[in-house]
Amino acid sequence: MIVHHHPFLAPCRFARLVLAEHALEQELVVEPFWDERPQFVAVNPGMTLPMAFDGDRGPICGAAVLMEYVDERYGDGRPGHRLMPADPFHRAEVRRLVNWFTQKFEDEVSGPIVTERILKLEIPNKKGGGAPDSSALRIARQNAVSHFHYIGSLAMSRNWLAGDQFTFADLAAGAALSVVDYLGEAPWQADPAVKAWYQKLKSRPSFRPLLSDKARLVAPAPHYADLDF
Amino acid sequence: MIVHHHPFLAPCRFARLVLAEHALEQELVVEPFWDERPQFVAVNPGMTLPMAFDGDRGPICGAAVLMEYVDERYGDGRPGHRLMPADPFHRAEVRRLVNWFTQKFEDEVSGPIVTERILKLEIPNKKGGGAPDSSALRIARQNAVSHFHYIGSLAMSRNWLAGDQFTFADLAAGAALSVVDYLGEAPWQADPAVKAWYQKLKSRPSFRPLLSDKARLVAPAPHYADLDF
Repeated sequence: MIVHHHPFLAPCRFARLVLAEHALEQELVVEPFWDERPQFVAVNPGMTLPMAFDGDRGPICGAAVLMEYVDERYGDGRPGHRLMPADPFHRAEVRRLVNWFTQKFEDEVSGPIVTERILKLEIPNKKGGGAPDSSALRIARQNAVSHFHYIGSLAMSRNWLAGDQFTFADLAAGAALSVVDYLGEAPWQADPAVKAWYQKLKSRPSFRPLLSDKARLVAPAPHYADLDF
Repeated sequence: MIVHHHPFLAPCRFARLVLAEHALEQELVVEPFWDERPQFVAVNPGMTLPMAFDGDRGPICGAAVLMEYVDERYGDGRPGHRLMPADPFHRAEVRRLVNWFTQKFEDEVSGPIVTERILKLEIPNKKGGGAPDSSALRIARQNAVSHFHYIGSLAMSRNWLAGDQFTFADLAAGAALSVVDYLGEAPWQADPAVKAWYQKLKSRPSFRPLLSDKARLVAPAPHYADLDF
């Protein structure tokens, strides 16, 4: 599959994890979305990332849409169990949490932190780049602590975030935490249960490519790639 | 099904259309989300509306999650064809458009217009109610025109918004336009193809309950319930 992405957008990382967990080959194309390339906008007017093509068909726009596509088309062939459970209410819970991390956590935590600390250095000034907004960062950091308490309450009461089984919800959450952790902005001390859950996730082979991503102008936090941090 | 909703939130209207199209009985409970009722927050910490229960099981949080649940559980029993097509790329297109209307159109058009003109009159001042913000309204009205051109381009090139078949995408879009139209804020003159498509939709029996909704403090635009407007 060809995936147009940005390596530090959490929903794009979620898509890469989804494809890796299904052993699907990925050709990644970095999409500088702020340039609004005419060929990009023409096929994807919302400029949603990730945007994927399966062979010559697509686009498939958005991480949650790609997740459903991959599960329906390739879920049967996945080694081990499927990442979307069979029970209808369990499925609703997985989807609720995927939306939580790709939308709510992204709006309140990962999106603003990545925008202020990574994207604004890559985006030309006349297209919205520039110095980070310290008040946006302060709010996102406060939000991160509340979110960690919520993730901790899930991780404490369940084996994986959506229940007993490892599901797409864990991948969406792990993707979102990984970009924040790259920047040393994950408040691990807020809840030890989050760290224990994330350690299990981080040691999966699907996670490895994310741990070697490097932002062009910002170095990773020293513990970022350590499995035992 | 029990559905916690607000009658003028577009994603809640989408949920009501989805249930009506599947002939599922609905018990509607108005949720004044700004009150953050402890029993509501406890089961739905994101305070997402709609929130549904099927018998004693749930909650199912969010319109898109409910749509998948209803299709998987009750889609086979629907008179006529299913609202989620069978082809995987066609499914991805339906989901893209459902997200477009429940997220993007809601953020840029229906959400701000309904918030400023209806919700702020119902919400107590100390919880964020008060006079409408005219600059938010002006921006939303400009956005509405661009969105109408996009919907028009889909309606012109396809029989229904996501392709030849009537799908969930039409319901999500119709729900979003209906709240804007109630307030006389739908720029029908921007694109005649949108009006023709909306007329087909508006005459469906599932739409009828929406057309008799009344906001407590704001009367509908005169043409709101007319099938031939």
